[in-house]
Amino acid sequence: MTRLTVPDDSLFGLANLPYGVYSVAGQEPRVATRFGDHVVDLALLLDDPVFAGPTLNPFMAQGHERWVAVRERITEALGGDVPDEAVHDLGDVTLHLPFEVADYVDFYASEHHASNLGRLFRPDNPEPLLPNWKHLPVGYHGRSASIVVSGTDVVRPSGQRKGPADPAPVFGPSVRLDIEAELGFVVGIGNPMGEPIPVADADRHIFGAVLFNDWSARDIQAWEYVPLGPNLGKSFASTISPWVVPLLALDAARVPTPVQEPAVLPYLALDEPWGLDIDLEVEWNGDVVTRPPYAAMYWSPAQMLAHLTVNGAPTRTGDLFASGTISGPEKDQRGAFIELTWGGKEPVTVAGQERTFLEDGDEVVLRATAPGRAGARLGFGEARGRILPAVGG
Amino acid sequence: MTRLTVPDDSLFGLANLPYGVYSVAGQEPRVATRFGDHVVDLALLLDDPVFAGPTLNPFMAQGHERWVAVRERITEALGGDVPDEAVHDLGDVTLHLPFEVADYVDFYASEHHASNLGRLFRPDNPEPLLPNWKHLPVGYHGRSASIVVSGTDVVRPSGQRKGPADPAPVFGPSVRLDIEAELGFVVGIGNPMGEPIPVADADRHIFGAVLFNDWSARDIQAWEYVPLGPNLGKSFASTISPWVVPLLALDAARVPTPVQEPAVLPYLALDEPWGLDIDLEVEWNGDVVTRPPYAAMYWSPAQMLAHLTVNGAPTRTGDLFASGTISGPEKDQRGAFIELTWGGKEPVTVAGQERTFLEDGDEVVLRATAPGRAGARLGFGEARGRILPAVGG
Repeated sequence: MTRLTVPDDSLFGLANLPYGVYSVAGQEPRVATRFGDHVVDLALLLDDPVFAGPTLNPFMAQGHERWVAVRERITEALGGDVPDEAVHDLGDVTLHLPFEVADYVDFYASEHHASNLGRLFRPDNPEPLLPNWKHLPVGYHGRSASIVVSGTDVVRPSGQRKGPADPAPVFGPSVRLDIEAELGFVVGIGNPMGEPIPVADADRHIFGAVLFNDWSARDIQAWEYVPLGPNLGKSFASTISPWVVPLLALDAARVPTPVQEPAVLPYLALDEPWGLDIDLEVEWNGDVVTRPPYAAMYWSPAQMLAHLTVNGAPTRTGDLFASGTISGPEKDQRGAFIELTWGGKEPVTVAGQERTFLEDGDEVVLRATAPGRAGARLGFGEARGRILPAVGG
Repeated sequence: MTRLTVPDDSLFGLANLPYGVYSVAGQEPRVATRFGDHVVDLALLLDDPVFAGPTLNPFMAQGHERWVAVRERITEALGGDVPDEAVHDLGDVTLHLPFEVADYVDFYASEHHASNLGRLFRPDNPEPLLPNWKHLPVGYHGRSASIVVSGTDVVRPSGQRKGPADPAPVFGPSVRLDIEAELGFVVGIGNPMGEPIPVADADRHIFGAVLFNDWSARDIQAWEYVPLGPNLGKSFASTISPWVVPLLALDAARVPTPVQEPAVLPYLALDEPWGLDIDLEVEWNGDVVTRPPYAAMYWSPAQMLAHLTVNGAPTRTGDLFASGTISGPEKDQRGAFIELTWGGKEPVTVAGQERTFLEDGDEVVLRATAPGRAGARLGFGEARGRILPAVGG
């Protein structure tokens, strides 16, 4: 038995207790929590077989009361002696995709991001936001199978693109490969078909949050997306962090959302609409190039989930909905390189080199922190990915 | 033991042998084939446990050679004496969703449909098709969890809509509820991330086809879909037929696709591009109102799958991609009511009543037939759904 300690300023102290899936050489993946730089096997710590499998889904499906109870049991157990066989060093384990993704939806919830893209793509229009933007959280479904865990390499996608001057589309590796710094929210308990989730109940359905990098091929996207939305420009890969930070750990991070004017329709309205005060940073080849503030997001996680289901659409354990690019009002808070470099016209310098979009070999890492209880600060780990050359490219 | 016979003109003779999932009272769902009006349990017929579970996925995952071999074994077994306990009457069983849906993508592959919608929505534009339409099969991801089997009631969705004259959006039950008559294609064997499926190999990855009704709330869709595509206007329900007709059964239905001009890029090109000569019909409250011909589709199933994966996106066993609305050149071949009634301006008479869009209590049934080997004709069963009033509506 071992008594585990972590430094007071750890981002993974008792205030956090995120969930992930790990393995050690020769053994099957199992569910763990991270405590400091220890990875603690939860099936062994709590003597509970729901954690002995390779995904969080069975535990998430047990519902909100169990999530509360288990969090208390972990806190208690980590305060006492812990079985040696339950504890691994972070450096000794492989981290896996923590849950099986059911349906995946990406939103577009940042007013600054949507406005910047409006100015870039519709420069002659005095109003950068489209008419529906402030009335509903615009979103679209994406490919669940393409969601990978931090550390997975990203092969540069090939596809069709056509510049305004090209007489016909050409096929080849994307030349405008970008990131989108987002947060993703994991649905623990879904809703049956025909029974929408009220906005006030959403926090009992959302299990937790992950970092989310929605890699985007802007040239493929620009050519394909009219009229049915993004497809191949996004579907090749999205990277999430290996740790799911429980929504229960983010109580202290709740902040009011920005004022929503015009007033939203009743199904999206809360007396006290809550966002989350989560600070992201984006590192490009070792340099932090932008620090997007999640607190600036116009549409909240609860509003996104209420909207997703208001037509009766069912959600399931393992559904993932992402925020869309997080951008703040300042240039160094923009969460996509197309905004940061203003469509590629204003290069940034990273590691001594000029960059607009991603080059082969580039590596991007998302990180984030948030306030936790009793003055603690929480971490989300990393969403890391390196660009490999296109196949045959 | 029983010797089963079916009438020579059955749509479910030896030339078809579709796969489905059935149950009888008090027992778990299992995989079956349909032979005439008999439902034959395949685990019992073939003494093969891969068919003893509630989905087709484990069998589909075994790959193309197994699909060929099993089809031969079923044909042989049905030619001899069949164990009594393997045989049920169609009327005595419940049919279930035949496979677990992984990712779902809907295309927009009919030139007639896309042109009609262009004329309806952009009447001032002399060219009804958008610039990308003849270069790539436009498609978008949809909600897998909303796909239901024939016979499931469809609750009218509520959502936001805003007519051109409305000062602000209103919330309420959709008043322009529509259908889309489509075919869906089931991926049996997918591709790993980074390894696209060549267009010439697609028929070894596609397991079979189902009828697909993509119920659509046109008013919700019109307000939400710019710029990221359809979401709530589609995500409440899509209905499939309970029988998956194997692509192996559709060899005799292969026909050349319409001439594609301008020439497609090499990754979409086949020496002999093949479509499928499948005739659909749409029954509305008992009257057949339209007969969409799948043979008229511009983009083929092989092209859709090659396009979906050309950026390296992975597909999985159970992926479903649908054709988009099937419309032919004639008015009575249009596969959506918005086209058939020209945006609601030209009502049709069904069962003695005028209709534009769907009323509560209306029932729609899709059916289809195709040529099979040796002069046989194949059926797809039905995709049937009835509209229930909106919740609280």
